[in-house]
Amino acid sequence: MKIHTLAIAGVGLIGGSIALAARQRRLAEHIVGVGRRPDALRQAVSQGLLHEATGELAGAARQADLIIFCTPVDGIADQILAAAPACKAGALITDAGSTKARIVQALEGRLPAGVDFVGSHPLAGSEKRGWEHADAALFQDRLTILTPGPRTNQQALERTTAFWRALGSRVRVMDPDRHDQALAMTSHLPHLAAAALAGILPPELAELTATGFRDTTRVASGDPGLWTAIFQENQAGVLTALDRLRERLLGLRGLLESGDWVALQEELAQAKKVRDALGN
Amino acid sequence: MKIHTLAIAGVGLIGGSIALAARQRRLAEHIVGVGRRPDALRQAVSQGLLHEATGELAGAARQADLIIFCTPVDGIADQILAAAPACKAGALITDAGSTKARIVQALEGRLPAGVDFVGSHPLAGSEKRGWEHADAALFQDRLTILTPGPRTNQQALERTTAFWRALGSRVRVMDPDRHDQALAMTSHLPHLAAAALAGILPPELAELTATGFRDTTRVASGDPGLWTAIFQENQAGVLTALDRLRERLLGLRGLLESGDWVALQEELAQAKKVRDALGN
Repeated sequence: MKIHTLAIAGVGLIGGSIALAARQRRLAEHIVGVGRRPDALRQAVSQGLLHEATGELAGAARQADLIIFCTPVDGIADQILAAAPACKAGALITDAGSTKARIVQALEGRLPAGVDFVGSHPLAGSEKRGWEHADAALFQDRLTILTPGPRTNQQALERTTAFWRALGSRVRVMDPDRHDQALAMTSHLPHLAAAALAGILPPELAELTATGFRDTTRVASGDPGLWTAIFQENQAGVLTALDRLRERLLGLRGLLESGDWVALQEELAQAKKVRDALGN
Repeated sequence: MKIHTLAIAGVGLIGGSIALAARQRRLAEHIVGVGRRPDALRQAVSQGLLHEATGELAGAARQADLIIFCTPVDGIADQILAAAPACKAGALITDAGSTKARIVQALEGRLPAGVDFVGSHPLAGSEKRGWEHADAALFQDRLTILTPGPRTNQQALERTTAFWRALGSRVRVMDPDRHDQALAMTSHLPHLAAAALAGILPPELAELTATGFRDTTRVASGDPGLWTAIFQENQAGVLTALDRLRERLLGLRGLLESGDWVALQEELAQAKKVRDALGN
């Protein structure tokens, strides 16, 4: 795959890593970053991450062959609707949002002829923020999920697949609703659990934490605004996942209270088996 | 501090790391490991971790100036009661158990004259098992909590402090009950939450997990038997901590369901503040 002009709207950790990977892999001849504070992005230009930085989405859209939105999930659909009329025929739009159903639904059938959108979610990230932490290997051997809707153009899906593969990622296609239900369990619920654990830690016990507490709560350092938007977009999925966790905790509580150590050990052994299979 | 003979009962990750650190720091002239499978420990002798391996606790206790129990928490008190009559006058006994109240209580006033016990808990470890993963730096700059009882000999407390400091650890003294309540929150509850999260993951979603899920559930790979013993010994403390987590999750659920995104973001921001302060 070869892109003439790649536009990245939202140059944070993900957008910055896409830029860095695209440059290192010579995927695009020209990379333009779009941000609300273009002055801050000029540093990314001088450091060789971007060729150009702008605050004007429409201007970037006009030149772009592929434009990817790496902005908070609650703004992606509106930003795409705003940018699409400026896009040239044949332009491909995608995103890197952690939720998909609402975005895909909001755009279905609403883009100009000749402009395609395919939703994407690279399962890669970090609790860190900002392009200063960009990592060209962020997508290497990770999975990116593509979530076409019923009317998605097959060729656009293939181009989006080729784009992520060119960044080093594996690709899997899923239904947007199924994506959101799955990610509620594998990503959004762990965040909520980590935030709850960190949130109830009495300050005087901070020095009595060790690697166990720190691992278990690490994601709670993620940006509260970004995560609130994710919970908002995937409200139903997260509620369902949260209720499964609460039910399991209630079951564990029952075993603890009744002193059923054999059954408790079986639960821990089952959890260990699942966790061991995930690798480090 | 200088110990002639150091006996380590239970040569797993913790016991093995104590042996390795003691050798590297020339803390003991002779290190004897006690295990139920002494054949397996002979390899630890041939690899230079131990000077001697035995299956006989009383024999090791007879020679030891300091004996440390790194066995599962539910067996420590009985093993110490079995070993103490064989100990020579002036011998110091300690342990590395993750729970303290029951152990301290079970031993209070029950050891022969001239033999002292001081409970210890190094806040260091890993989800890994076995002396093969021993790490001489495991205690370096970590905190070890000592939990003297009302009749604990002051000199024994000082010797135990010197022992852990010689292994590179910082030391803090706490009441055994307060220790168990604190660790319920900082260690035992995170383990239960991680196990619950791992336990409810449908197998087909395993490949949709990323670093967030993996960090949050990492401790669930810990040994189910060791952890069941910890929950058994700290039943009341863990129940209290678990109820605080359940209450917080219920509160978060309410915000999610009612769509109170402002309040949800405040909760996430408070959790982030706590987590950020812990460092990596």
